[in-house]
Amino acid sequence: MGMIQIIGINGLPIVKEGDNLAKLICESAEKQGTPIRDGDILVVTHVVASRAEGKIVNLDDVVPSEFAKKIAMQYDKDPAMVEVVLRESKSIKRMGDGKLITETKHGFVCANSGVDKSNVPGERIVALLPDDPDASAEKIRQEIKRLTSYDVAVIISDTHGRPLREGEINVAIGVAGIKPIRDRRGEKDLFGYVLRVKQTAVADELSSAAELVIGQADEAVPVAIIRGYKYPKSENAKATELIRPPEKDLFL
Amino acid sequence: MGMIQIIGINGLPIVKEGDNLAKLICESAEKQGTPIRDGDILVVTHVVASRAEGKIVNLDDVVPSEFAKKIAMQYDKDPAMVEVVLRESKSIKRMGDGKLITETKHGFVCANSGVDKSNVPGERIVALLPDDPDASAEKIRQEIKRLTSYDVAVIISDTHGRPLREGEINVAIGVAGIKPIRDRRGEKDLFGYVLRVKQTAVADELSSAAELVIGQADEAVPVAIIRGYKYPKSENAKATELIRPPEKDLFL
Repeated sequence: MGMIQIIGINGLPIVKEGDNLAKLICESAEKQGTPIRDGDILVVTHVVASRAEGKIVNLDDVVPSEFAKKIAMQYDKDPAMVEVVLRESKSIKRMGDGKLITETKHGFVCANSGVDKSNVPGERIVALLPDDPDASAEKIRQEIKRLTSYDVAVIISDTHGRPLREGEINVAIGVAGIKPIRDRRGEKDLFGYVLRVKQTAVADELSSAAELVIGQADEAVPVAIIRGYKYPKSENAKATELIRPPEKDLFL
Repeated sequence: MGMIQIIGINGLPIVKEGDNLAKLICESAEKQGTPIRDGDILVVTHVVASRAEGKIVNLDDVVPSEFAKKIAMQYDKDPAMVEVVLRESKSIKRMGDGKLITETKHGFVCANSGVDKSNVPGERIVALLPDDPDASAEKIRQEIKRLTSYDVAVIISDTHGRPLREGEINVAIGVAGIKPIRDRRGEKDLFGYVLRVKQTAVADELSSAAELVIGQADEAVPVAIIRGYKYPKSENAKATELIRPPEKDLFL
């Protein structure tokens, strides 16, 4: 019988720039009676990683360009917010319905370049995505190894809307220690049929699983432990492997 | 501390047309020492529901149309398989790279109208999607209520590729007893900021979480129990609420 546990970590203090996030996570996990173990997967919502890295912006400090002002007026948005979203983007994909769908510097296509207003202190404070979410994940992983000697996988997650389907789900934007895609091509099914097209986006599934404890709590749960999943290990995988190049995208 | 368990149910016999799937699930869960409890969520892969409902086709019995033959030749596919995929579809979205992206009769956009070759006995046997996956889920739910007196949620899941991102994830194509989308608009975040655009596709996240035990096992795990998640209840929700109408889709 396979069994996986998803354990929300709460009790983290408000994370500030320069904080040792790995240490805070270890301490909070220990304190609530679920210390981190070897082989755990830690799913960390990007906002806490961004806060620890100082990737926050006060919209009052932002001078919007004429272009940002024009878009803001047209789509009834905050010009400073639009300016930040544009700065964080490589290209604008679509605008409408009060939303800006952009391609981030990393290549993720999502609303507002991933710039987040929630779970950030202050009405005018927003959190950007980390510059290199894989590096953010690896930093946490290495620090946990140093503190506990355990090898864990770390996933930085974000909440994304998606084409075709309503509602948002959590997906992986940074990974460390884990392959984001499990390649099952060549494996046999129950009846010996060889799977030909099965590549499972396990890092996205793990992020979505973690959201079940992150999203349901009354108190803040910015990190989840997933325990009991034999993940495909990797020392150099990147979450950008999850980005499908447009020329390969049959859905678009 | 929030904790959720994902428990794979194995030991199910090969499901045949007319089998009482709910009973088989309850018996297998009991046998492996994890009997179903009130408030559990059961995620059932569509292939077993389809098999129980006799939604299987022997490709040797299918006479392909001239159109199916033409497409099959052009894209190097089995003409009988193409014929079945077309019969199960409302429209063809894209063809290429050996794949047919279609809109199913239910409105789901996926590869091959969800027609599945894996985990079906026989090289030439394929499983279709259930005619009404919500009804399939409700039938299992009601039968479990009758057998155990417990109220559970049931999700019928399928493996879907998706636009923009590589790799497949499991999503919900049928639901019973649970709202597929949790509307969090109006809830407050950690700092009192009122969430404005948060609608979480929890049925998809639960399906993806279940895949972690369904997909990793060496033996067949067609069903998972998710325990400890306080799901939004509903007596009449439909998985088609997860389908975004094209006119509302800013990503496409």
